Amino acid sequence: MSDFRTAAHAAAELVSDYLAGVPAGPVWQPMDPAARQALLDAPLPHTGRELDELLAVIAEQVLPAPMGNGHPRFFGWVNSAPAPAGVLATLAAAAMNPSSAGGDHADVHLERAVVRWIAELVGFPHRPGGGLLTSGTSMATIVCLSAARGRAAARAGHDVRADGLTGLPPLVGYATGETHSCVRKAAELLGLGSRQLRVVPADAEGRIDPGLLRAEIAADRAAGRLPFLVVASAGTVNTGAVDAFEPLADLCAEEQLWLHVDGAYGAFGVLDPAIAHRYAGLDRADSLALDPHKWLGVPVDCGCALVRDPEQLRDTFSLVPSYLRDEEDGGLGWFSEYGIEQTRPFRSLKVWATIAHRGRDGIAADVAHCTRLARRLGGSVAADPALELLAPVDTSIVAFRARPAGLSEAELNALNHALPLAVQRRGRAFVTGTLLGGREAVRACLLNSATSEADLAVLLDEVRCAVDELTIRQ
Amino acid sequence: MSDFRTAAHAAAELVSDYLAGVPAGPVWQPMDPAARQALLDAPLPHTGRELDELLAVIAEQVLPAPMGNGHPRFFGWVNSAPAPAGVLATLAAAAMNPSSAGGDHADVHLERAVVRWIAELVGFPHRPGGGLLTSGTSMATIVCLSAARGRAAARAGHDVRADGLTGLPPLVGYATGETHSCVRKAAELLGLGSRQLRVVPADAEGRIDPGLLRAEIAADRAAGRLPFLVVASAGTVNTGAVDAFEPLADLCAEEQLWLHVDGAYGAFGVLDPAIAHRYAGLDRADSLALDPHKWLGVPVDCGCALVRDPEQLRDTFSLVPSYLRDEEDGGLGWFSEYGIEQTRPFRSLKVWATIAHRGRDGIAADVAHCTRLARRLGGSVAADPALELLAPVDTSIVAFRARPAGLSEAELNALNHALPLAVQRRGRAFVTGTLLGGREAVRACLLNSATSEADLAVLLDEVRCAVDELTIRQ
Ligand SMILES: Cc1ncc(COP(=O)(O)O)c(C=O)c1O
Ligand SMILES: Cc1ncc(COP(=O)(O)O)c(C=O)c1O
Repeated sequence: MSDFRTAAHAAAELVSDYLAGVPAGPVWQPMDPAARQALLDAPLPHTGRELDELLAVIAEQVLPAPMGNGHPRFFGWVNSAPAPAGVLATLAAAAMNPSSAGGDHADVHLERAVVRWIAELVGFPHRPGGGLLTSGTSMATIVCLSAARGRAAARAGHDVRADGLTGLPPLVGYATGETHSCVRKAAELLGLGSRQLRVVPADAEGRIDPGLLRAEIAADRAAGRLPFLVVASAGTVNTGAVDAFEPLADLCAEEQLWLHVDGAYGAFGVLDPAIAHRYAGLDRADSLALDPHKWLGVPVDCGCALVRDPEQLRDTFSLVPSYLRDEEDGGLGWFSEYGIEQTRPFRSLKVWATIAHRGRDGIAADVAHCTRLARRLGGSVAADPALELLAPVDTSIVAFRARPAGLSEAELNALNHALPLAVQRRGRAFVTGTLLGGREAVRACLLNSATSEADLAVLLDEVRCAVDELTIRQ
Repeated sequence: MSDFRTAAHAAAELVSDYLAGVPAGPVWQPMDPAARQALLDAPLPHTGRELDELLAVIAEQVLPAPMGNGHPRFFGWVNSAPAPAGVLATLAAAAMNPSSAGGDHADVHLERAVVRWIAELVGFPHRPGGGLLTSGTSMATIVCLSAARGRAAARAGHDVRADGLTGLPPLVGYATGETHSCVRKAAELLGLGSRQLRVVPADAEGRIDPGLLRAEIAADRAAGRLPFLVVASAGTVNTGAVDAFEPLADLCAEEQLWLHVDGAYGAFGVLDPAIAHRYAGLDRADSLALDPHKWLGVPVDCGCALVRDPEQLRDTFSLVPSYLRDEEDGGLGWFSEYGIEQTRPFRSLKVWATIAHRGRDGIAADVAHCTRLARRLGGSVAADPALELLAPVDTSIVAFRARPAGLSEAELNALNHALPLAVQRRGRAFVTGTLLGGREAVRACLLNSATSEADLAVLLDEVRCAVDELTIRQ
């Protein structure tokens, strides 16, 4: 073990140097083709290498080619910088290496605690067993939608676990065009079919229109289909829009539909008193999927599925017959009875460390910092005649486009389509693009409490320079 | 960052001490009720704490309550000790914190390499894109079976992604009673229904009987159902049995069925020349699920899905229209087009480090060490009249029971049902139980190259002592 200890200290140095060096380096750069090929083509080694040699390879070939999301000027997709406490916790979790499937060891009990903490942070009602950590919101969505599918089938007198979907009328769900694609992937995986996931038009602010929704539900019922699910968003991926939950919860109660909320990116926004009112009614959902690996900065991977009724989750996944369920663990059983994974990693330690390091108050301050900066960035964009803000800044995402004078819509689309990569390649800021109502847009997602107002100025400078590059080149 | 550096070194000390102390401590002990409750009931903290305080909590409350699987006398389920190189890699991966969904950064390219390495290690044919890392075999199974479902539906003229399972005749799969429950969970999740997963009786060695299988397939076809899948095992969880793949591959070719192999536990057994012949024909499967987090000791979580035809995987999961697919990355696109996860953790670094540390030869030696010890343990069990070997030792799992003279079958079942926990509580060895053909059994799974023959002697001593405790108590 002595070489392990030495190597562990070397690794501690390596990652400390790495993290300390991030802000001064480029945000991201395309990899050198030879370096890329070296990684891709590495032959399976026949003999082993010492730990210190492996660390040298990591230092030379891996650490120099990051994704960029540790940098304070990374605004791409929804990828945050790692919380330092979470990084350290990961080391201890890997050394213990339990499976948090169940049993009597620290990791399992800690997961119960942190799932409760997450529910408390976002104000979702929680009973023991009513949730678990997953690899992300894609998985959490599958977990929640499986429970919704099972409840709907049972109400139609059908045991979907035993008999599958054969013989059931189509189960129909409702979402908007702004709903994250993981919901479509879940509908496909569960055998429901993406055509049975209706795209209800969103209103101008990107929110579900309950009136249109009601009409679609009636039409599906009239056609003999089984409406069962509404998917709302607590922060859409494109613009950070938060649905109005109260009217949706009323509608779902009336129509006996399962209300699922995708809070992957935005659920923790509720911690900012300035925008908390947007989340009214979130606590009335049947399920909520959210990502500690996004706004909290818990190192990837860490999602979380929260379900109002723990029994619904267990009935969906448990292979333990119900008459055998009450014997141990206060009757809660194993986490593997509540989800898809059998062997489950020790995700709870990094969640615990991340939350305990900042505390609720620190996290709320970090979140508020991001939303404030986002509003500020939105303001700067709106004030610049060569830029155009494309959506209200509800949370911490700013969607905009460049609009230099004299370009047609088609030319604007071509320009803004090329813009994110042009910014990325300059290496000083990182944004990604999307399509909003047919218009090519640039979006900046603010998740990093280390980002400053000066960084926003750099971002806008970079956008302007990239626009110049692209328009001169044309 | 200076406090991070200090804390990182403290964490390095902590995990080095922890790992060095494992062999001398008890394998596992039930948690002290107060300590358990302290973890379960911990209130959400409102204010933050310094990194060093967090490490102190980990040292006092978490590290003392492990699952036990780091210990050389842990033989429970299929949970290995963490490979030291993998533990260190985890730290660097968390510090970089990319999403390996796709893009041009080291983690993505490294994943392509290690998936190829894994395929090469087990002798599965591999084309770029033909696989990805997952959180475990449960997820890998879902990935593979989704591809199988899609192919079968397409052959029936049905687009299962768009239309779901509505309107399709029942799709039927075949497995044995020894097939891991994750296959049933996958069939349920995919909307196929567990009744459509036929349990074909296994032969005396726990293997699929191709004759019985053929008859079931014919009966299902005659009834208008659509046979589409055979699930074979490269190492069953209960006894480590390896199916005879050649006849199954022949049958699947004739009947146009998808052959999926569950190699979660046992696929790497092929590296031991003494048992490699059992795996003949594994390379003819359509898909293989296996777990680097089992026999390789890659820290949890890490599974892998390998699929013969990369396009089948991409067609199952990609949301990128096929006419847009060929632009970049040598046409391979993103990993998120080949599986379920959108944000994907940097699992490849710990796989890379674990394999590179030992090399193919070192891994093969470790595997052979385990199978040799397992055969040795099987021999000792068989030689003891108070014990009974319940299955041949094909790989590295030994299934047996205590059979003290003068007990009825019912009494033997009661005794052997209680035996694993009685052994566990004594703290010197850890085995788990299972049911084999109606008989309660104890099973020992050997995965740790640090396990010695002396440890086997301790295990058998502990079993005998626990039997004495239980029979005296009766
Ligand atoms: C709103 C939203 N939903 C779902 C997801 C998918 O979450 P994950 O990548 O954790 O699977 C994302 C990811 O960006 C998201 O922003
Ligand atoms: C044979 C077999 N298949 C599948 C699994 C499930 O794999 P995982 O726990 O990685 O999901 C296991 C786990 O023990 C197994 O032994």
